[in-house]
Amino acid sequence: MQTAVKLNPSSQTVHDIVTPSLLLDRGKLTRNISRLADHARQLGVVLRPHMKTAKSIDVARLVFPDGPGPITVSTIAEAEYFASHGYRDMTYAVGLSPASALRAMEICKRTGADIKLLLDTVEQADALAEVREATGVIPSVLIELDVDDHRGGLKPDDPTVIEVAERVVGAGARLAGVLAHAGESYGLNSPAALVAAAENERVATVRAAEILRSHGHDCPIVSLGSTPTAHFAQNLDGVTELRAGVYMFFDLVQHGVGVCSKDDIAISVLASVIGAKPEKGWILVDAGWMALSRDRGTASQLVDQGYGIVCDEQGHVLEDVIVSQASQEHGIISIRPGSNRVMPDLPIGSRVRILPNHACAMAAQHTFYSVVEGEDAGIEARWDRIRGW
Amino acid sequence: MQTAVKLNPSSQTVHDIVTPSLLLDRGKLTRNISRLADHARQLGVVLRPHMKTAKSIDVARLVFPDGPGPITVSTIAEAEYFASHGYRDMTYAVGLSPASALRAMEICKRTGADIKLLLDTVEQADALAEVREATGVIPSVLIELDVDDHRGGLKPDDPTVIEVAERVVGAGARLAGVLAHAGESYGLNSPAALVAAAENERVATVRAAEILRSHGHDCPIVSLGSTPTAHFAQNLDGVTELRAGVYMFFDLVQHGVGVCSKDDIAISVLASVIGAKPEKGWILVDAGWMALSRDRGTASQLVDQGYGIVCDEQGHVLEDVIVSQASQEHGIISIRPGSNRVMPDLPIGSRVRILPNHACAMAAQHTFYSVVEGEDAGIEARWDRIRGW
Repeated sequence: MQTAVKLNPSSQTVHDIVTPSLLLDRGKLTRNISRLADHARQLGVVLRPHMKTAKSIDVARLVFPDGPGPITVSTIAEAEYFASHGYRDMTYAVGLSPASALRAMEICKRTGADIKLLLDTVEQADALAEVREATGVIPSVLIELDVDDHRGGLKPDDPTVIEVAERVVGAGARLAGVLAHAGESYGLNSPAALVAAAENERVATVRAAEILRSHGHDCPIVSLGSTPTAHFAQNLDGVTELRAGVYMFFDLVQHGVGVCSKDDIAISVLASVIGAKPEKGWILVDAGWMALSRDRGTASQLVDQGYGIVCDEQGHVLEDVIVSQASQEHGIISIRPGSNRVMPDLPIGSRVRILPNHACAMAAQHTFYSVVEGEDAGIEARWDRIRGW
Repeated sequence: MQTAVKLNPSSQTVHDIVTPSLLLDRGKLTRNISRLADHARQLGVVLRPHMKTAKSIDVARLVFPDGPGPITVSTIAEAEYFASHGYRDMTYAVGLSPASALRAMEICKRTGADIKLLLDTVEQADALAEVREATGVIPSVLIELDVDDHRGGLKPDDPTVIEVAERVVGAGARLAGVLAHAGESYGLNSPAALVAAAENERVATVRAAEILRSHGHDCPIVSLGSTPTAHFAQNLDGVTELRAGVYMFFDLVQHGVGVCSKDDIAISVLASVIGAKPEKGWILVDAGWMALSRDRGTASQLVDQGYGIVCDEQGHVLEDVIVSQASQEHGIISIRPGSNRVMPDLPIGSRVRILPNHACAMAAQHTFYSVVEGEDAGIEARWDRIRGW
């Protein structure tokens, strides 16, 4: 029975911290960071990690042990946070609104940061004139490309690419290059398909850069990436930088795509058993969607992991034990449908770790990480996360 | 074009606050609060609102204009927060772990609060002896009932109810009563079925109380509720208190159940248009699942609202316009499948309000409410929310 709630964080362990808590395994994190850094080095491109998953200066310091490097951010709040920690070279990888462009340039003016903006319409380009006038900062701009019908962006051969580039220059802004994100790669699950998606992303992005150059635009940055294509890219000729974010933590969706093993997943939610319904094969824990997120990204994959795979307190996967249902503060643990296994013995008060479907979504439900190292029960550190916009 | 970002909150409006932002319409909130308060009064029961949706002392002050009243909480963090604001009579409506029981009783010891705990196993009852010994506080306990096979709890006729009651007393704790939650009512959508679910919840809960009394236990509290059954209950004879939470804000799931109109929904996310794909019928906004939540609660209802219904900047519903897809910081707006309507004109930088599938989940993605009043564009106040455990 774990009734002892220690108040001194330095002596806390996974046995006695408050549940639910977000655990981060430092060893796995370090391994994942090295893996993609090595791959980018071999491919001869700069890695510009996306901080939207970790949202933590402590994680960034592991990525950049020698001091701030180039990063990608998903909100202006992230840009402000990382600028306050000395980061200068940032790409805000969400299409700009006039108001967000103004906020970004105000950060640049105040801190000396270079925050590159993203756009794909002439209206956004035209709006930059007013932003430049209001702040005195010359905006750096990337044109968003659509390489796989995922979301925003222009097709490389769309003449609007050139029109937008000219309007960017006309607004007194600087065309820094092109940016693509092969988001449809999340729906793949074979190495051959992932290699092909990575090559398609490369060819389309490089083509857009070449078209821009043939029209007299420098296009110094040729940026692409998604966690699946970043890991499966075999050749990045013509590309200058690679972006990925979830690779630091990995998750069950990435496992389903085939990018990582379950053992690579660096974050989990620690939860306590609070009840059981043996007649239904249920065990109840104090982690519902508030702690796990509502993400059901594996529902469309070959193996549906419910709201996450259950591990024992040390992090060993309990085979075929998943969180099958989640309400706000309750999770229902049961055996995966079709499995013949029996539920392990998990008495009231015992603790489990739950692996995420989607690391970005699970982490976003928490304000800090409790840092652990493998099976060791001690909490090494508490790392804060930022949120908001 | 809205490039002006005012820094003085007192003069901010929905035209210039940062997007995405969580808006709370004070008039609708007040109306929803009054509706259930009036209904509870007519039925002759105490209303013990669940603060898990609003998580805000400012909202609680509208519910209890004359000072702190009885509340329900979903986390120990909520209990601490409301205790610090003078709330004393609380029910922690999640099955206890030994550690959470200890934390709750430490709050009681420190503040004089009476936090009632919930359990449904003899193991949980037995653990209370140690909690009492460690804190010197006599825990007050409710036995959780299962009235509709929803989640935790014991069937009223299960002899374990009596066994648990005796073990509670044996552990030196106080049996305060019984508690039920007709969570399956969220899956209904006809008034007759909702009236029947409410009556079923009442009959089962009162029956458990009577069985306990026949075994010599006082059972002063007979507590039940869910937002749908609370509104459709026609008779609460034998019940002492009613619980509900989402009723303060309402949402599209409750609209689908038939408890509220779209016009009753008091929260929304304000978002800015950041792009368009006319050939696909898409408009992109800067509110993805980070701002809207991943909740897809209407997916299993008669009308699937995607990630939410889109309104204009003043809050008027744009008929058949929904958020059809969401990634982390992007929402894709499109016309509902099967509709013949055309997409309204929404240029870059224009703003929309998005109604939630699930108010608890949308609100949880934000740290504060920007309070508005109907169509008036001014931000009246900024109300903080709490989070964590």
